Amino acid sequence: MALSNIFVHHVYFWLANPGSGEDRAALVAGLKKLSEIGTIREFHIGQPADTSRDVIETSYSLSWLLLFDTAGDQASYQVDPIHLQFVKECSPLWSKVLVYDSVDI
Amino acid sequence: MALSNIFVHHVYFWLANPGSGEDRAALVAGLKKLSEIGTIREFHIGQPADTSRDVIETSYSLSWLLLFDTAGDQASYQVDPIHLQFVKECSPLWSKVLVYDSVDI
Repeated sequence: MALSNIFVHHVYFWLANPGSGEDRAALVAGLKKLSEIGTIREFHIGQPADTSRDVIETSYSLSWLLLFDTAGDQASYQVDPIHLQFVKECSPLWSKVLVYDSVDI
Repeated sequence: MALSNIFVHHVYFWLANPGSGEDRAALVAGLKKLSEIGTIREFHIGQPADTSRDVIETSYSLSWLLLFDTAGDQASYQVDPIHLQFVKECSPLWSKVLVYDSVDI
């Protein structure tokens, strides 16, 4: 089924201490809190699958996939107090974050 | 709403000739054909949104987001004749492809 009229916000996190189960759990807990933001239509907290080919990026720690109805909803999510608090509390946990925002063609 | 029990296959394509509308249309047409593969639960053909921050990757040409029910469904998609034909026909169109496969934590 085609997804359309959506704003896809896909974030990949690399933990500063990838071996720390405690840090990972803290980031997951932060993402779960983040998921309460009302403009989020659907979300998925993921980790790398066990697939492996040259073109597959498997070095990240956690994937955070969000679907919004509109670009405006995503913009409002960025400045939501819950999101600002998440960044403040959780940003020390990661060494790198990469975001891909996509809209319908 | 939480998405769970899914396999997220997110592919980003960089066109070899990003300025060619013809090449872009050919890749989109290829993706539309690909979307007919029966194991795909949901798909989205996207392009970079007009968001802009340091952490946002905006240089890719097209985003191809697929949700599968299982890792097995994704594996079967990889070897589906429609997919093999797509790679054969369309791979000359891109200079780089990057894949992130994610499963539930």
